[in-house]
Amino acid sequence: MAETNALPLVELAEQFAKLPGIGMKTAQRLAYFVMGMTENEAKAFADAIIKAHKTVHCCKVCQNLTDKDICPVCSDDMRDHSTICVVETPKDVAAFERTREYKGVYHVLHGLISPIDNVTPDKLKIKELLERVNNTEISEVIMATNPTVEGEATAMYISRLLKPLGIKVTRLAFGLPIGGILEYADEVTLYKALENRNEI
Amino acid sequence: MAETNALPLVELAEQFAKLPGIGMKTAQRLAYFVMGMTENEAKAFADAIIKAHKTVHCCKVCQNLTDKDICPVCSDDMRDHSTICVVETPKDVAAFERTREYKGVYHVLHGLISPIDNVTPDKLKIKELLERVNNTEISEVIMATNPTVEGEATAMYISRLLKPLGIKVTRLAFGLPIGGILEYADEVTLYKALENRNEI
Repeated sequence: MAETNALPLVELAEQFAKLPGIGMKTAQRLAYFVMGMTENEAKAFADAIIKAHKTVHCCKVCQNLTDKDICPVCSDDMRDHSTICVVETPKDVAAFERTREYKGVYHVLHGLISPIDNVTPDKLKIKELLERVNNTEISEVIMATNPTVEGEATAMYISRLLKPLGIKVTRLAFGLPIGGILEYADEVTLYKALENRNEI
Repeated sequence: MAETNALPLVELAEQFAKLPGIGMKTAQRLAYFVMGMTENEAKAFADAIIKAHKTVHCCKVCQNLTDKDICPVCSDDMRDHSTICVVETPKDVAAFERTREYKGVYHVLHGLISPIDNVTPDKLKIKELLERVNNTEISEVIMATNPTVEGEATAMYISRLLKPLGIKVTRLAFGLPIGGILEYADEVTLYKALENRNEI
């Protein structure tokens, strides 16, 4: 931002620029937009940041983000508490909930094992998962991490911890995405689709 | 956001979604990012919004945004105060300042005449410009609004107010952008470039 700009405006733009996917140019545009808000609107925006940060924390059971002690999914008696879907982030929980098909519960790891980024298993919510598995009756744990190197490694690591406990561990199916075109599928996806073919 | 998400998180995402160019999906991502901030970082972000909104206002002279009574450009004795560059927004001032070539001062209209959006001349800082022109010695007013219908109309409207006062009113040059390729220039730009050709 040119030096002719007011310092508080530059500071606000710098705050916006810290957000993921927001460059300095967009950050400036957002800062100018905030200047055009009414005082109440600006206050509501600032308050929402503080409030979300203060009141939202991890669910005691599944580690998903919630403003309650135990999140709505974990406290719902209608759900199957013996099936745990293990995901990387709270966003993944939201994605599964949008399918409206999954009736089990979740466990959020808050990351994936990645030695290169200095993320070791002890930094994830893995011991909480083991505790949960030990203290409640679990029939199946679904590893629903992303099909990436880190996702596969984490799924493998956790499954090796759970299998000796006699728990059924499953992995999401990989294959062609619905609506996808075979011609444009990458080799690994196509190979997986071929390998995991089903009888019709 | 799925209903499983904590309400304060949904509310924060809704605040982000009000910003220009930020859809609901990006807003959710930003809200999750804020959750990952430390408490101090979140507080600094919220404070920057409040502070910018409270301390930044229009310069008494040129109407550009500033946290002082009179902005740095208007209070700079080294600049040519008899040349006023009239622009639509504070962003345009920043753009001209980046050229490091313009030595005059500015006047920010905070909008363009646009009857369809219910923006009439009295909603812009036009009377402040006329006052300024009447009270100080001005040799030239440069109309630097965008080359759009609204920009042209506003430039024309203001020039008709200023010309009877015996003030030289100029308009930015339109032509091929530097580094542009002739083949891809639109017809109007090419016509303007031809019309405004200079002897070499």
